[in-house]
Amino acid sequence: MTIKNFGKAPHALFKKLVSNHITGDLIKLFYHSILSIRMEHLLIDTIKTWERFYRANFINCLSGFKSANLIGTVNRERQPNLAVFSSVVHLGSDPALIGFINRPLAAAPHTINNIEATGVYTINHINPSFVEKAHQTSAKYPAEVNEFEAVGLTAQFIYPIIAPFVAESNIKYALKLVEIVSIKHNNTFLVIGEITDVIVAEGLIANDGFINIDEATSMACLGLDAYYTTTKATRYGYARVTK
Amino acid sequence: MTIKNFGKAPHALFKKLVSNHITGDLIKLFYHSILSIRMEHLLIDTIKTWERFYRANFINCLSGFKSANLIGTVNRERQPNLAVFSSVVHLGSDPALIGFINRPLAAAPHTINNIEATGVYTINHINPSFVEKAHQTSAKYPAEVNEFEAVGLTAQFIYPIIAPFVAESNIKYALKLVEIVSIKHNNTFLVIGEITDVIVAEGLIANDGFINIDEATSMACLGLDAYYTTTKATRYGYARVTK
Repeated sequence: MTIKNFGKAPHALFKKLVSNHITGDLIKLFYHSILSIRMEHLLIDTIKTWERFYRANFINCLSGFKSANLIGTVNRERQPNLAVFSSVVHLGSDPALIGFINRPLAAAPHTINNIEATGVYTINHINPSFVEKAHQTSAKYPAEVNEFEAVGLTAQFIYPIIAPFVAESNIKYALKLVEIVSIKHNNTFLVIGEITDVIVAEGLIANDGFINIDEATSMACLGLDAYYTTTKATRYGYARVTK
Repeated sequence: MTIKNFGKAPHALFKKLVSNHITGDLIKLFYHSILSIRMEHLLIDTIKTWERFYRANFINCLSGFKSANLIGTVNRERQPNLAVFSSVVHLGSDPALIGFINRPLAAAPHTINNIEATGVYTINHINPSFVEKAHQTSAKYPAEVNEFEAVGLTAQFIYPIIAPFVAESNIKYALKLVEIVSIKHNNTFLVIGEITDVIVAEGLIANDGFINIDEATSMACLGLDAYYTTTKATRYGYARVTK
């Protein structure tokens, strides 16, 4: 069902809102907006009562499309580790800082422990040709398992970087650890790294530095397990007040 | 040019690598990988010499596809502010925490100041029907300008939330401020909020809680000024070691 099919029976939602004990003022405001599209208003106290996995799927989708990446590391004994991450975030271009969110240590210890131990890691864009293998790295393999071998991807070592790249990936970069910031409210971590090396398939960089990552078949992801290809809508350039 | 066209003349890249003073070991490793796809290896010391905007475009694309959102706030006098943000990141689903990166205060003071002053803000997915207006909010309007009016979007107030939603947006939520974490390396901030209310167009929530935000026409963005629509490739479900 697409959005275009909505808005045919606003009175039904109006009644539903009343039955959900939403106050009169809100209904008035809300009713106005649903004349074109029917919207649901969900309170966090309701969401908290939902079954755990249903709620996790829902909340994970709200933050929107995310970058689909594999992070490659080694431990002190140079045992490779590979794990899918959906929380990579741009922090700044000078210095070139990239962050990612690591879940609590009990849930996801390997990547963050390896980064702390060695100070080096790689981030590799996921392409459709190996997305199923990439997603499989999210399984809870024991520390002694090399996920590259377990899922069938190729570890690529580029001297002198000790962390493995994913050979199959068309865009990838190495980072050195800058800081691990603890987020105390839910025991997660913001891992901050500075880019040291970029490996990119030739022909992707536009004449203003923009990288056509869609032509490299880099993917977006959503929620806990959905992957997307993209289609460029437009580039607008730098927005000015005088427009 | 698509990836499929690459790899026809690896010898040319081989020569280019030599001329770029890359060491012999690296060339050997690298030459092996470019037999199928020609890759470029860029060192940060080279990237740092690039013109400022070229470099910013390049680095901003490396983190991959991002969620395209508008953040709505008010100041202490209830003056609305609206600004586009591409750095929204999921932090956890219980409690439902969402983060976003705010640039240094000198570059982007209004949103973060308003959030500090009032403790409340909204995040609104961007849809193609208003993406041009959304991007225009990135212009440096003075503090006294209401960007809703300046770009032609509709501020929607849902009692008792004092921060404005974007009426045109099909998926949006309100948050209360939890913490602002300073990232000292580049004077940016990780703003952490807890979701209090979710407004979502009816019919989008799958029977496991997953939200079909592509059907809501939520967009992805890339770099500083590019916007994308998406196409779902697949959902894989929870990955298990025993697969």
